[in-house]
Amino acid sequence: MPEQPTGLRAGIDLGGTKMQAIVVDADEHVLGQARLPTPTTGGPADVIASLATSVTGACEDAGVDPHRLAGIGLGSPGAIDERAGTVADARNLPNWPAEPVPMAALLADALGADAGRLRVVLGNDVDVATNAEFVLGAARRFSSLLGVFWGTGVGGGIVLDGRQWNGRGSAGEIGHVVVIQGGRTCPCGREGCMEAYAGRAAMERRARHLHEEKGRRTKLFQIMEERGRDRLTSGIWSRALEHEDELAIELVDEAIAAIGTAAASAVNLLDPEAVVIGGGLGVRFGEDGVARIRAAMLPHLFRDDEPPAILLAGLGDLGGALGAALLLHER
Amino acid sequence: MPEQPTGLRAGIDLGGTKMQAIVVDADEHVLGQARLPTPTTGGPADVIASLATSVTGACEDAGVDPHRLAGIGLGSPGAIDERAGTVADARNLPNWPAEPVPMAALLADALGADAGRLRVVLGNDVDVATNAEFVLGAARRFSSLLGVFWGTGVGGGIVLDGRQWNGRGSAGEIGHVVVIQGGRTCPCGREGCMEAYAGRAAMERRARHLHEEKGRRTKLFQIMEERGRDRLTSGIWSRALEHEDELAIELVDEAIAAIGTAAASAVNLLDPEAVVIGGGLGVRFGEDGVARIRAAMLPHLFRDDEPPAILLAGLGDLGGALGAALLLHER
Repeated sequence: MPEQPTGLRAGIDLGGTKMQAIVVDADEHVLGQARLPTPTTGGPADVIASLATSVTGACEDAGVDPHRLAGIGLGSPGAIDERAGTVADARNLPNWPAEPVPMAALLADALGADAGRLRVVLGNDVDVATNAEFVLGAARRFSSLLGVFWGTGVGGGIVLDGRQWNGRGSAGEIGHVVVIQGGRTCPCGREGCMEAYAGRAAMERRARHLHEEKGRRTKLFQIMEERGRDRLTSGIWSRALEHEDELAIELVDEAIAAIGTAAASAVNLLDPEAVVIGGGLGVRFGEDGVARIRAAMLPHLFRDDEPPAILLAGLGDLGGALGAALLLHER
Repeated sequence: MPEQPTGLRAGIDLGGTKMQAIVVDADEHVLGQARLPTPTTGGPADVIASLATSVTGACEDAGVDPHRLAGIGLGSPGAIDERAGTVADARNLPNWPAEPVPMAALLADALGADAGRLRVVLGNDVDVATNAEFVLGAARRFSSLLGVFWGTGVGGGIVLDGRQWNGRGSAGEIGHVVVIQGGRTCPCGREGCMEAYAGRAAMERRARHLHEEKGRRTKLFQIMEERGRDRLTSGIWSRALEHEDELAIELVDEAIAAIGTAAASAVNLLDPEAVVIGGGLGVRFGEDGVARIRAAMLPHLFRDDEPPAILLAGLGDLGGALGAALLLHER
């Protein structure tokens, strides 16, 4: 057997739409990567099989034997028990049970690793992405940070005085900060949440409703079919904006206004040094999107003479996977 | 000269409507108190003269010679520089300049104290009230806390992991968490802030507008005149509710809905163990008001199966002054 190199690890960002795996060295240099769609049918076994495939794919890309990995970090949605290595109640994953699934052990098994040799460490997807931006990304020169991850939902992560703040385990739910009391119904069932206007899933539902039931014209679903997709990915929204599709413009405007309002409310409460915008849609809309979110925040900022730094995620699409790999870094 | 007793201190809570002074012993037992209206005309000199009168009044009530005080803690609105002992930009105080007023030194002078002997320590009014509830009041068995002080404005204080969180100096502005994007204009000039619906000043402005310009009937201003007041104090609102005054009921309903929404947004972000409701209106409306705020929060709480404790301030009207006295306590 070859000697174990120090610090060779995999990180996986498991999202509702896709999973991104990377292999990094001790300095978090990315040696290889693989991206797969997240299964939309089946259940935990299918998700775990795909995760194993993503790891072997990233290892192949890196030219690394999977057996040489010192460990795997996994950023997952749902309720994570880091010690037990379980994930419960992951609503964006197919047919996930309410009871805890022993994800860490099952993934090690799926990779054919001897029990106990391959460490698999779990973390909350948004927390690890926030930590990656704090340690390696756009916020590395700040000591307090609000991370806003604009994707299928809108997640938030909070770092205060250099440490992640999790409250009683559920802090950072910026997607469920209310922007319009009595407003639109959110996928979570509550009224007026920011995510009801800005989450990719809610935007798609709204577009479908306005197109199919109200007869609004849009190229969104045509682009979706041309691309052989079954949902409105961030790439499809971006393309529709390039086509000056009126409905897409209207819904993205609403989303940006809602993110700006909720982020400003959060800044008025927390007064952090920096706000970092990431996530699938956040990264896709890039600096232009961040400039628009900043403009939407300013009228609501109590301290408008000295706003926080409002920055695009520095690690792009790989932030979540890098944060997952950091779960195994001893600091 | 009599021997200096240890721990005899004054605490003053300086509000936009009134100032409350107390004298406490080493265990924060209240030995005496005095309450004066905050001057609405004049300037810093008038406010400081009243503060000195409030301290001598509290000393008289306690039977304590003011020269025996080891120090005075003052909770003030505005931008506080604790080290310099200055207060700038206190918008709820009459004709306060934008530049820093050396409040600590001026108050010591006004009390005729030898420079350097009488310590005067300043703190932010909302921060000291939050700390008092955390150390001595309703939240003393919790390690994280959101304080909501419902008065002329609505201030917020945050304690996380046992320590006050101030951000870059301006954290806790829960009154300026947005509840309705594009909603009513706040006294701060921004749109849709919680305080635009819930602050006593905003409620009075709204009542005046609806009464004088829209012809809405109300007993609010009649009660105000009968009591010889020049503004709608919390007692007047409370009395109008007892009279089932429709306009008062409507505006208090709006205020409670807005506080519930903003507090729920803050809880979704911070996930604290406890929320404490205080301030002039908060204390006046008591447990019934807190029950109504709790009911307004619940539909917006992401973690509605396990909400935080939502509690009435335990120190009532004296919380701010006790918190101010705590500024001098070595802990």
